[in-house]
Amino acid sequence: MTSQGSVGVVEPQCAHFSEPLALRSGGVLPAYDLVFETYGTLNAARSNAVLVCHALSGSHHVAGTYAGQPKSLGWWDNLVGPGKPLDTNKFFVVGVNNLGGCFGSTGPISINPTTGEAWGASFPFVTVEDWVDAQARLADRLGIDAWAAVLGGSLGGMQALAWTLRHPDRVRHGMVIAAAPQLSTENIAFNEVARQAILTDPEFHGGDYAKHGVVPTRGLRLARMIGHITYLSDDSMAEKFGRKLRHGEHKYHYGVEFEIESYLNYQGDKFAKFFDANTYLLTTKALDYFDPAFDYGGDLKAALARAKAKFFLASFTTDWRFPPARSRELVYTLLHNGRDVSYAEIDSNAGHDSFLLDEPHYHAAMRAYFANIEV
Amino acid sequence: MTSQGSVGVVEPQCAHFSEPLALRSGGVLPAYDLVFETYGTLNAARSNAVLVCHALSGSHHVAGTYAGQPKSLGWWDNLVGPGKPLDTNKFFVVGVNNLGGCFGSTGPISINPTTGEAWGASFPFVTVEDWVDAQARLADRLGIDAWAAVLGGSLGGMQALAWTLRHPDRVRHGMVIAAAPQLSTENIAFNEVARQAILTDPEFHGGDYAKHGVVPTRGLRLARMIGHITYLSDDSMAEKFGRKLRHGEHKYHYGVEFEIESYLNYQGDKFAKFFDANTYLLTTKALDYFDPAFDYGGDLKAALARAKAKFFLASFTTDWRFPPARSRELVYTLLHNGRDVSYAEIDSNAGHDSFLLDEPHYHAAMRAYFANIEV
Repeated sequence: MTSQGSVGVVEPQCAHFSEPLALRSGGVLPAYDLVFETYGTLNAARSNAVLVCHALSGSHHVAGTYAGQPKSLGWWDNLVGPGKPLDTNKFFVVGVNNLGGCFGSTGPISINPTTGEAWGASFPFVTVEDWVDAQARLADRLGIDAWAAVLGGSLGGMQALAWTLRHPDRVRHGMVIAAAPQLSTENIAFNEVARQAILTDPEFHGGDYAKHGVVPTRGLRLARMIGHITYLSDDSMAEKFGRKLRHGEHKYHYGVEFEIESYLNYQGDKFAKFFDANTYLLTTKALDYFDPAFDYGGDLKAALARAKAKFFLASFTTDWRFPPARSRELVYTLLHNGRDVSYAEIDSNAGHDSFLLDEPHYHAAMRAYFANIEV
Repeated sequence: MTSQGSVGVVEPQCAHFSEPLALRSGGVLPAYDLVFETYGTLNAARSNAVLVCHALSGSHHVAGTYAGQPKSLGWWDNLVGPGKPLDTNKFFVVGVNNLGGCFGSTGPISINPTTGEAWGASFPFVTVEDWVDAQARLADRLGIDAWAAVLGGSLGGMQALAWTLRHPDRVRHGMVIAAAPQLSTENIAFNEVARQAILTDPEFHGGDYAKHGVVPTRGLRLARMIGHITYLSDDSMAEKFGRKLRHGEHKYHYGVEFEIESYLNYQGDKFAKFFDANTYLLTTKALDYFDPAFDYGGDLKAALARAKAKFFLASFTTDWRFPPARSRELVYTLLHNGRDVSYAEIDSNAGHDSFLLDEPHYHAAMRAYFANIEV
């Protein structure tokens, strides 16, 4: 299952929506922009469109590179392209930055037109359902009545699931990868520690750090370090870093001693330079809140009864953030509702991050599933 | 296996050691105090002494209560007492606060006699082996040539193991609970995030916060919150807290929303009030460094060849910090060295914290093992 061609050089587009969006929190976003990218060509029947939803730190930049920036590869480039599992010779693929994001779509770093200042801490809480509603308007704008498929991994998978519930007639295939019907207690716990790292950073200033000309770097890097541990598996970390020492001996200091420390600090530093702290907070809350069964008194089967799509789910054996058991919960419930479900439980030692990798069986399963989608 | 009587009201003692202690780091501690408690009576043959080693946040206060403080129960009180698994009618039990600790033994908050100021950041790195050597001098002081048993859970278990290697003739039974022959990469990763939380707290001041009259509370509470997640199991958190909401509905704020958030914040706040940040840093480093095989080119079997003790090991099925597989590594290696090993793999849903609980099969195994130790 080697990857084939690239979609090549791509360029983001921006769609402005001036109609207010009512949010699940009770708030209203008066107007908003969505930044998105497309790959492939929408067919005449407008039946070959696929929406790719991103996870916590992802963006609209799913595939290809930007002009003059050969290292700017999209985050799911191994999946999307001509001849790749999600084949752009067949499908018209759309990637979109979520509301509340920090990569161009309206979010905390955007200007609030009412005040003329950045939204900052005053940006309203957004949920997975709000993202889906905002994306539905983008579908309208692009003339797409129904997606051939909506897919995503992790939080992106939750969006794919929410699409099948919120707009059941507008998605033919829901593809929910490395996700869960809701966060576990432990998932929420990790999110809360990450949030506390940001919220208690003296440079957070109640979310209005921009006004103070600072960034809560300490908090953001800790949040990312914590998150990163949960994306990897014990096995993959052991294989990659083991107990390898940077200096070959114990130095008895608080600088980098083990290679894993170097890696985590590097990941934290890198992330803190490009990601917005308010977006991080909002996004982890969207994760915490997501729970289709919540409005049904905890009855997941009743909550999923609205879905009309066919489903593809995949999980990874060493994913301890969203373990296979969480995907099976969804699979069984969908089956009990009489839905058509394909499920792949993939042997992988790469933990939650597996969904971003081109593990051969995983990509073969995705390739076969996409090949069998009629357009 | 109900717990029996209490050791009652206890009082810590302090032993001063004026002979310098050479440390594994190359440093030297010119003199030191060890605070300890004892329960039961040393027999005439001095053959019934048991040393209990503590883990990261533990202390010398293993059993009983302090006068006038009925809530000041020792951390392993369910195990130690008259008629309890570690029966003080039979054994003379010693608990000791480790060097570098913050509960009375010499550590960063103690006065460095050379400077007349608190050691703070200048306190030397201490290792598991150093703790054991310091404890050996306490044994000398108490007239104990050989311990009937040395035991501990987690980092305490590592000390028990180190005792059997460092002073093979002075320990007849090594009891290593919920431990591992060394930290995994993931263990180190969590420790490093916790340390970074403290080290980057603006009130840490390079470890000399005391001189500035402040405490790195933010960092300490984050460190504890991270740690706490790893002490529990996914299952036990789900059972205890699930997705229970504090207010019954989503409030869309960054205050406490889910009960698990309340619990973690409470644990973090509580810990930051009584634990010293430098001790936390030193102790996590002692955990990282511990690796008996390190001086043997990674050959654990060779490293353990010195041990002469009989062994008891126990692990807990949902402990993902030190999973059963890590105990089995030790069990198999000790068996290949021809040692006498008892091993109990206990079904428990309480994660790493299980070693502190009175899970019936676990306590039955401990009770039986102690009953069969000849004194």
